[in-house]
Amino acid sequence: MALIVHKYGGTSMGSTERIKNVAKRVAKWHQAGHQIVVVPSAMSGETNRILGLAKEISAQPDPRELDMIASTGEQVSVGLLAIALKELGLKAISYAGWQVPIKTDSAYTKARIESIDDAKVHADLNSGAVVIITGFQGVDAGGNITTLGRGGSDTSAVAVAAALKAEECLIYTDVDGVYTTDPRIVSEARRLKVVSFEEMLEMASLGSKVLQIRSVEFAGKYKVPTRVLSSLTDPMIPLDEEMTSGTLITFEEDENMEQAVISGIAFNRDEAKITIQGVPDKPGIAHQILGPVADANIDVDMIIQNQGIGGLTDFSFTVHRNEYAKALDVLNSKVKSVISANSIVGDDKVCKVSAVGIGMRSHVGIASLMFRTLSEEGINIQMISTSEIKISVIIDDKYMELAVRALHKAFGLDQAK
Amino acid sequence: MALIVHKYGGTSMGSTERIKNVAKRVAKWHQAGHQIVVVPSAMSGETNRILGLAKEISAQPDPRELDMIASTGEQVSVGLLAIALKELGLKAISYAGWQVPIKTDSAYTKARIESIDDAKVHADLNSGAVVIITGFQGVDAGGNITTLGRGGSDTSAVAVAAALKAEECLIYTDVDGVYTTDPRIVSEARRLKVVSFEEMLEMASLGSKVLQIRSVEFAGKYKVPTRVLSSLTDPMIPLDEEMTSGTLITFEEDENMEQAVISGIAFNRDEAKITIQGVPDKPGIAHQILGPVADANIDVDMIIQNQGIGGLTDFSFTVHRNEYAKALDVLNSKVKSVISANSIVGDDKVCKVSAVGIGMRSHVGIASLMFRTLSEEGINIQMISTSEIKISVIIDDKYMELAVRALHKAFGLDQAK
Repeated sequence: MALIVHKYGGTSMGSTERIKNVAKRVAKWHQAGHQIVVVPSAMSGETNRILGLAKEISAQPDPRELDMIASTGEQVSVGLLAIALKELGLKAISYAGWQVPIKTDSAYTKARIESIDDAKVHADLNSGAVVIITGFQGVDAGGNITTLGRGGSDTSAVAVAAALKAEECLIYTDVDGVYTTDPRIVSEARRLKVVSFEEMLEMASLGSKVLQIRSVEFAGKYKVPTRVLSSLTDPMIPLDEEMTSGTLITFEEDENMEQAVISGIAFNRDEAKITIQGVPDKPGIAHQILGPVADANIDVDMIIQNQGIGGLTDFSFTVHRNEYAKALDVLNSKVKSVISANSIVGDDKVCKVSAVGIGMRSHVGIASLMFRTLSEEGINIQMISTSEIKISVIIDDKYMELAVRALHKAFGLDQAK
Repeated sequence: MALIVHKYGGTSMGSTERIKNVAKRVAKWHQAGHQIVVVPSAMSGETNRILGLAKEISAQPDPRELDMIASTGEQVSVGLLAIALKELGLKAISYAGWQVPIKTDSAYTKARIESIDDAKVHADLNSGAVVIITGFQGVDAGGNITTLGRGGSDTSAVAVAAALKAEECLIYTDVDGVYTTDPRIVSEARRLKVVSFEEMLEMASLGSKVLQIRSVEFAGKYKVPTRVLSSLTDPMIPLDEEMTSGTLITFEEDENMEQAVISGIAFNRDEAKITIQGVPDKPGIAHQILGPVADANIDVDMIIQNQGIGGLTDFSFTVHRNEYAKALDVLNSKVKSVISANSIVGDDKVCKVSAVGIGMRSHVGIASLMFRTLSEEGINIQMISTSEIKISVIIDDKYMELAVRALHKAFGLDQAK
């Protein structure tokens, strides 16, 4: 008997028929003797529908009130799933985040989980009940509802699994695992049976939509074995088969594991780059530029500063495309005159393409193969950023698919191992 | 400066355009110097939509989980209204019932309010904010979400007004006040400028849909001056005009008030009657019959027992039509054999029509005029029940409109006073 956390995405919860299927799958696990906690997302489209109403009323809706309304989608989901489980004869109880409670900070629309009380949930599990907890949300110290931002239900599930010391966290979704790249762009993309935590972290941060990055961080921090698998299979497939399907995120570097040099090509179209030209090349300048940006709650991704010439340098960074206008606004109003920059320019028609792989550590020439491949396709590289296990480039977004396909082939990811 | 509670129904909150109109009206009151608490319903159709999902999953959904999901409609409403008020430059904050908290008992889907904490709300009001509180819901001692049942937002509003010692509770709805009867059935129906609390209580209990009965009970218990008025007027009409529109429920019998003998004709089509035939006429029999019905949480309305003949009597009562099957089930399984009744018969095609008026106290012949009028229309009376200020009859529901029109005319309600 093990304690297992299941997470179901919006598509898996998309209709009452699908919710009944989720209930059948959960019941199968429960009847095999496992203790099950389920963290479902809102029914697909529901959160967008509600936030659309807010946008009809205000171009810049108050974040606290947005969380008040956005959190309702999951509340409906947990109630419906509890009803479906009871209909199958199981004991089941649902909780909103504040009822557990899942405590977060007060950063509305992008809150971070601070603690999860496991007492109530363990008591329910020990009484034989399936416990269903709303994803995506929590409650701050003032008793206000908060949400974790898009994809936050993955984070909720992994955080709940960590708090409950669950044996495994199963992320059921509409894809059957993590691929070498997006199969919609490269038909030869292959599913990875195992991926290391570090690779998964890079892939998530680089735009792979399979798992939200904070959920991977949580999985890594608390070493929660996490598996991404399909919710579209027959709910009654044998448990053994289901337990080994999908992609497992592992925390051990297994020496026997035949590790490819590169595990996957990730990409992200939601990028915008900003360059501040003619910045005095002196200590503290990066903070003077990015401090006000951070204060405005804008996440910065890649940051590049070149060696200065003649006491002046250019400073570039990327932000989410949705925050491009806001970032430019902050820079023009609060930064430009303070640091006496010459000009601020930007482009929100760029994308990021990355090659990720733990094998990179022990192989040379990965970067040069990547740059050569792009060059042969006539794609200009605008920015480069590297870490120990990934290389990312910013390119014109019209070349994104071409770049992904070329790199996937160049690194031999289309060949079965 | 006064503290005023506004309540807006589902139709008034039915679209983002209408929510913006509600915000304009609230802003007008706030800018005139009043402290405003708003209790909105869910957007029209929303609660039905959500409960419909539950019904697709289970014929008898778990009540706790129903409340979990049904409460979300109001949560969306309060958030959207707060956003709309902020868009107008006002300070505003929304609360779900559990955040206030509004404490209730644990009778899911028909909970009763036990207490309302006014500390947080008063603090917000004193800071200049408009406070918006979800109608229809609260939280029980165990921290579970409860709902008050259909129309519960009226009750929430009046209860909040009582807890805050508000000067007036304004119930904005899609009708412009309380009428002598439903204008859709009798075109000559007239709006009452003032109605006594007792008459309103009878009218609500007798099927007038204008106010939920528990809200009237609350208004009476705590003497909350409550006004029913239209939300469909231009939100910017002068405050003086708005303050005297609609129908005021009063707690004083004003001697100068020209009181009609009968104030209105109420009716209710949601009735079903059940008769237990051949019941031993001995002490305790009513409790033996109705105890199990009450235990099943079924509300009983009219109860009639005739003088027995030969040691046996017939015992009749009415229930809500939706609970007819459940009530028959309880009686057949738990009551019939215990009390050795001959048979249990029923009819769910009946309705109740009532004449209500404080003036009845000092006038004789009201009942006989009522019975004669129905008789002249060829309508058979199946059950009769009276109180100090009302007479109700149960008749075949196909005669309902005819009966209402005939009685409205017979009591002179179509003549302007």
